[in-house]
Amino acid sequence: MSDSANPRPIAVTLGDPAGVGPEVAARAWAVRKDHDLPPFVAIGDIASIAAVWDGPVERVGDIAEAERLFDDALPVWHLEDSGPVVPGSPSKAGATCALHALETGIGLTRGQATGALVTGPVSKSQLYGIGYTHPGQTEFIAERCGVTATNAVMMLAGPRLRVVPLTVHVPLAEVPERLTSELIVAKGRIVARSLKRDFGIERPVIAVAGLNPHAGESGEMGDEELRIIRPAVEQLLADGIAIEGPLAADSLFAPHVRTRYDALLCCYHDQALAPFKALHFDDGVNLTLGLPIVRTSADHGTAFNIAGTGSADPGPTIAAIRMAAALTAMRERNCAPAA
Amino acid sequence: MSDSANPRPIAVTLGDPAGVGPEVAARAWAVRKDHDLPPFVAIGDIASIAAVWDGPVERVGDIAEAERLFDDALPVWHLEDSGPVVPGSPSKAGATCALHALETGIGLTRGQATGALVTGPVSKSQLYGIGYTHPGQTEFIAERCGVTATNAVMMLAGPRLRVVPLTVHVPLAEVPERLTSELIVAKGRIVARSLKRDFGIERPVIAVAGLNPHAGESGEMGDEELRIIRPAVEQLLADGIAIEGPLAADSLFAPHVRTRYDALLCCYHDQALAPFKALHFDDGVNLTLGLPIVRTSADHGTAFNIAGTGSADPGPTIAAIRMAAALTAMRERNCAPAA
Repeated sequence: MSDSANPRPIAVTLGDPAGVGPEVAARAWAVRKDHDLPPFVAIGDIASIAAVWDGPVERVGDIAEAERLFDDALPVWHLEDSGPVVPGSPSKAGATCALHALETGIGLTRGQATGALVTGPVSKSQLYGIGYTHPGQTEFIAERCGVTATNAVMMLAGPRLRVVPLTVHVPLAEVPERLTSELIVAKGRIVARSLKRDFGIERPVIAVAGLNPHAGESGEMGDEELRIIRPAVEQLLADGIAIEGPLAADSLFAPHVRTRYDALLCCYHDQALAPFKALHFDDGVNLTLGLPIVRTSADHGTAFNIAGTGSADPGPTIAAIRMAAALTAMRERNCAPAA
Repeated sequence: MSDSANPRPIAVTLGDPAGVGPEVAARAWAVRKDHDLPPFVAIGDIASIAAVWDGPVERVGDIAEAERLFDDALPVWHLEDSGPVVPGSPSKAGATCALHALETGIGLTRGQATGALVTGPVSKSQLYGIGYTHPGQTEFIAERCGVTATNAVMMLAGPRLRVVPLTVHVPLAEVPERLTSELIVAKGRIVARSLKRDFGIERPVIAVAGLNPHAGESGEMGDEELRIIRPAVEQLLADGIAIEGPLAADSLFAPHVRTRYDALLCCYHDQALAPFKALHFDDGVNLTLGLPIVRTSADHGTAFNIAGTGSADPGPTIAAIRMAAALTAMRERNCAPAA
């Protein structure tokens, strides 16, 4: 366990070299003092940064150097040349580099050289082109950590709201069959544990949204609330977890309701993410609960259409790095052996 | 057509006498000057106001009296005694009174005695108990106006956002089959026309959300975007309507995206209402487009649990009355014969 007064640097993968990942990482470094960012090390093709940024960069051969260098230059763990980097024009070599950066970031963090993992944006269609088969980075990271997909829980967290989609990248028509009591119980337990361990909330209170409009109105508009969600809530209550619901999803997001809860469990992607992004577009962080490592990411994609133009907002990356540092510190405090 | 310098009063139904409808109408009147409210007349059981408010009330026998009285007292078009009114304890007599208020408000507005209809909150389960069969007040009003359910379009409108759920009170599992190209085209046309006629937006621009996460990612996660939504968009474009989509529902609600559009068409209830209420809980108005009359309502229910306690917020009713007045004035201007 590292000395918490001298935390290990955070691994920040650059994602697709042709996306906005390299520039937002570099621009986050540039404002490191304004945002009190902890030392981090960028992982990827050093040329992808040079293509979009002319600030100081230092290649590191040992993670321990990153902290020493961090004041004066962006430390980069260079992986490989990914061919000529053209911002906005993805390539197979670039997708391979993005995948290697992800593997490296996981390995460094699993091996405790780095304190947490912040992943940059990748292109799923580019990754599919080189044989990647996972639905996203989260599922890949979970597998590398020996955690099943059900037990790796996606959370979007911002200063005012935390949401968890219980099903994620699923066609809407399949959501009702994918939503099971077992799934809700498994994810509910992980969320409750993480709110204590990672967020330091002593007695977290969770809400779960209904699947149907008005949470089904007592079975008048769909029965999944009665058949699936309510039994899961009963089980979680029996486990000693403070949870309420199913509640109508629309009123759940009203200010005086959402603020009563430490996290909102939602039945599907857009039920969670549409209101979340309405409130937290620039400072929302995507994080993965239930892993042995702390993992966060900026909640946006490669944005190939604006890569290299300097218009990508580094705000979400800054928020992801800050949250990774806070979660790591809290987890180390809560898991430290008693003095 | 009325003289627009001397507009007709607005009909405000009190909804269920045991709900918060009577008190929010009375408290809206009390702050009429602060909010520059136009004259309105409350429709319902006069005893339901006396039960929760001790301000001045005047029973009117002719709508024309309402405007004259409005400065000094809340004008009430008294319908019938609904039995002893106990706030928070609904009854069959109360449900009957609520239904009669709705019928009366529609009749007065259809007959042009009142300029617009603002409906108070009713209890659907109470109404079902007296034989009402419509899913909500909107469908009832549409029928009384000779408009099919498809052509009566629910919109939630606030100062910063307008959303339209294309399907409304439908179990989530049935949404994919209810969402047809014809439905989207019919509702899209009504929205475009209303934005011009009722909101005075010369060249409205509309967006439509995808049904699936990330709008299906080119068919990778559901094909309704390609099969149903895109053809509807093509048809609306061919009609000369400026519409974009299907767009991923989550990023659609981000501030820099949603502000590009005059209205967002969403595939189902919570996709529209959860982000809307996250942003506009206290000042959102529910309105019905496609009717021959202007109809708005406060976007909340009877709230029996707080009725009579004085804690119900009159803000949504004030917003609904103000919007009804604005829409009526705009419609009269746009529909007035040329001078």
